[in-house]
Amino acid sequence: MLPLHLQPQSHVPLYVQLRDQLRALVHAGDLRPGDRIPASRELATMLGVHRTTVANAYAELESEGLIQGHVGRGTFIKGNGNGLKITPPAPPVMNGNGSIRWELLFADERGEEILSRLTAGVPDNALSFVMACPAAEFFPIDELQICVNAVLRREGAEVLALGPSDGYPPLKAALLELLRHDGIAAKDENLLITDGCQQSFDLISKAFVRPGDSVIMENPTYPGALAIFHGARARCLSVPMRTHAEPGTPLGLDLEALEATLAANRVKLITLTPDFHNPTGISMPLASRRKLLELAGRYQVPVVEDHIYARLHSREERIPSLKQLDRANLVIHIDSFAKVAFPGLRVGWIVAPPQAIERLRVVKQTTDLHTDQLAQATLADFLRRGLFSKHLAKVRRIYTSRLAALDEALRKHMPEGTRWMRPEGGMCLWLELPPGFDATELLIHVKERGVLFAPGRYFYVQSPLPNTLRLAFSNLDEKQIARGVATLAEMLKIEMRKRQRGVRRAERSRVALV
Amino acid sequence: MLPLHLQPQSHVPLYVQLRDQLRALVHAGDLRPGDRIPASRELATMLGVHRTTVANAYAELESEGLIQGHVGRGTFIKGNGNGLKITPPAPPVMNGNGSIRWELLFADERGEEILSRLTAGVPDNALSFVMACPAAEFFPIDELQICVNAVLRREGAEVLALGPSDGYPPLKAALLELLRHDGIAAKDENLLITDGCQQSFDLISKAFVRPGDSVIMENPTYPGALAIFHGARARCLSVPMRTHAEPGTPLGLDLEALEATLAANRVKLITLTPDFHNPTGISMPLASRRKLLELAGRYQVPVVEDHIYARLHSREERIPSLKQLDRANLVIHIDSFAKVAFPGLRVGWIVAPPQAIERLRVVKQTTDLHTDQLAQATLADFLRRGLFSKHLAKVRRIYTSRLAALDEALRKHMPEGTRWMRPEGGMCLWLELPPGFDATELLIHVKERGVLFAPGRYFYVQSPLPNTLRLAFSNLDEKQIARGVATLAEMLKIEMRKRQRGVRRAERSRVALV
Repeated sequence: MLPLHLQPQSHVPLYVQLRDQLRALVHAGDLRPGDRIPASRELATMLGVHRTTVANAYAELESEGLIQGHVGRGTFIKGNGNGLKITPPAPPVMNGNGSIRWELLFADERGEEILSRLTAGVPDNALSFVMACPAAEFFPIDELQICVNAVLRREGAEVLALGPSDGYPPLKAALLELLRHDGIAAKDENLLITDGCQQSFDLISKAFVRPGDSVIMENPTYPGALAIFHGARARCLSVPMRTHAEPGTPLGLDLEALEATLAANRVKLITLTPDFHNPTGISMPLASRRKLLELAGRYQVPVVEDHIYARLHSREERIPSLKQLDRANLVIHIDSFAKVAFPGLRVGWIVAPPQAIERLRVVKQTTDLHTDQLAQATLADFLRRGLFSKHLAKVRRIYTSRLAALDEALRKHMPEGTRWMRPEGGMCLWLELPPGFDATELLIHVKERGVLFAPGRYFYVQSPLPNTLRLAFSNLDEKQIARGVATLAEMLKIEMRKRQRGVRRAERSRVALV
Repeated sequence: MLPLHLQPQSHVPLYVQLRDQLRALVHAGDLRPGDRIPASRELATMLGVHRTTVANAYAELESEGLIQGHVGRGTFIKGNGNGLKITPPAPPVMNGNGSIRWELLFADERGEEILSRLTAGVPDNALSFVMACPAAEFFPIDELQICVNAVLRREGAEVLALGPSDGYPPLKAALLELLRHDGIAAKDENLLITDGCQQSFDLISKAFVRPGDSVIMENPTYPGALAIFHGARARCLSVPMRTHAEPGTPLGLDLEALEATLAANRVKLITLTPDFHNPTGISMPLASRRKLLELAGRYQVPVVEDHIYARLHSREERIPSLKQLDRANLVIHIDSFAKVAFPGLRVGWIVAPPQAIERLRVVKQTTDLHTDQLAQATLADFLRRGLFSKHLAKVRRIYTSRLAALDEALRKHMPEGTRWMRPEGGMCLWLELPPGFDATELLIHVKERGVLFAPGRYFYVQSPLPNTLRLAFSNLDEKQIARGVATLAEMLKIEMRKRQRGVRRAERSRVALV
């Protein structure tokens, strides 16, 4: 089933939308040379459009050399059409005389590798809004070096030996102090150290989710979490994120849709990122958090709170976390050092009721024994010396300024019809192009000008909106941000003009055809 | 189903064997206070023994206060009988008003936590033969400190940032050099860095094994691998390890049984540890390796070779690894720094055909993005400076001497009827007590004298032999080994004398009963 999503309300003709989306699928590698695409009549039925719409789109793609019809066999993706590099699929069988067909051993899920393919082959000095990661130029390397040396001198033999699977005790102690500061009264038995939030999702999935179980996720959401639950063969039920304020409906997770989903399904887990949500940047208002916990309690469903961006708040005040508000012990709270400090050190943590932690600890032990202890001990020292909070204060200032620069540049350059909600922290801003535009298509053009971003479609559980994209602003300085947004806006305006011409041509062809 | 295994060929009466094994199950926590045990008639049928045998065992356990009959309800484990501490089961529901029944979310498998319970509560200066780990007193901490400082100075920003999921490139380059030295011509595309062999098993399971798939394992085997495949709901088919040389049948994996298992099942993977197998210490002879690869090729089944102990060879020459002999690209070779150097740094690797590595890389990315880069970069530096091979030469000498001391002490102290095969490297020796003795029972006694070991039953996929145990010798010096073995032998002899009295009593009681 092709992930196509046409928007009839757009002024961009449907056949242009379809052409652009099919072209984007080829560039993204979702469609590969030799893949058969549906007959125009068949696809028209699937999409609920007139057959002419599909025929027009196919005609343009054929003239571009991207697809080819074979009499009696159907229509196929042609090969390296359009001069673009397409990664060939892996050879179907192994070399060597053994010839095990490894791919027959493989599972049916595939990795989310498309984005890296899309953004490959650009120069190192490209302006990349792709990764939601801390800026490496501010890493406090000297301070970290002091910590690692202190650790190796003081407790080297212990750190380098096999350790407890729930975590290195000094790090657990330092994190309990940090949690107290966050307003979370946790004890040692409430805390498990992991290799970061990605592993936390994996451990939670292994501990609590069985094939066929239902998991509620935000739509759009963090693709890494989606990959975990898909891999576990869970049913991923999505609840929409409201990305624009409307009277009477708060921003963030649609709580009415959540309640309907809880009422209609036996749900095993709800996962969400209440603070500076990835990819939309939105924070859940306090009233929504209380309502969410009330619903979770009523339906007796545990809530996984991804707290990874929460410390990066632009404003002074913070909305209490779900864990802080959690009177009913419903919340599994996951966090990590990766967004504030060092993603290369793979250390995160889970805060949860003791019974859940005990179960997760056993799973952690089975998965990889325990987390790297040199990293754990070094970060414990980093916390105890107050270097973490000092560094956090610094990066908060930097990212707040970058976020302001992004918002300003968007207001200055973006054409009418684009929309975004300015986040109050985190690393991500969610941009909506005018309906009918495909962000993947736009990426192909801005990439040639040395600008990169993540198209929105990779973040959706279902019903992707092709006109959305994510701008991560933490890794570019204010000037780079201004330059990148100007380029993005310029290319978008060019594409909009092309579409206008497309409309006129489409009107003519429609006259000729009917 | 209780894991009971009586040995009729033993001179220890069956009822004594049964009594000891049931008592051991209570001490290990397999049977808990309140658990119902089968009626004597029922258990006698299950075990294929006379009902009197079970009745005699039950009578003794009842007089010890360990079990209790309730009229009309059955026989139950009594509580903290015998004054021994038994860990109570976790409370069934959560505290707090939410009262989520977390345990209902749990999977059905349980963690292999029993061993840690058995060995808990002993003084720090106990002589422990439990862990197959490197001796911490020889960790080259100063050298490692030089490496970590060089890394942070030279490449700090890169190391601390997010990295590639297949591994930190300088470590991959250094490992390819190490592999070349091992006689394995691997390229970058053949290599994936992991968090150690435990994670390698987890990634292999996720990549290639689906619920219901059959995986062949050695019996006994490494419990961590078994836990992974059980967790993945694979069918674990076991092939016996031959632990004693007999004319015409080589030591190690029983190849006839392997062939029969391959012929009778559609097998997804074969996993094994050809060098200094854990727990038996046995190495597979070269001819068996060739035969194994021939069988794997004929049945087209990939082979997972756990190479983690292979560098710790006592003798100068090494038997070629399966990967070295692998002409048909059948072998997935896993290895780690944990047994030679630092288990607290969680870094291992997988060598496999490119298609398998590509699949594993995607799974690795989904699981935890990538392995800790400070550890990777530091170990790369450690390898490049020649510190790894220097350290390996040192620990090989040390462990070889400890192994010799263990063999000597066993020959000096052990009573007739105990058997072992002296390994030619690694960290483990497998000891068989006279048939009918239960190693878990013996552990309870030697533990009071400050000596610990791992009973063999925790290593079996099926049909555990209760009279087996594993002695890991890497963490005790020659004097400690001599002292530990003397204590072990002394307690065993006491138990043997008790059993002799038991035989006489049993003979008397048999006369009275019939």
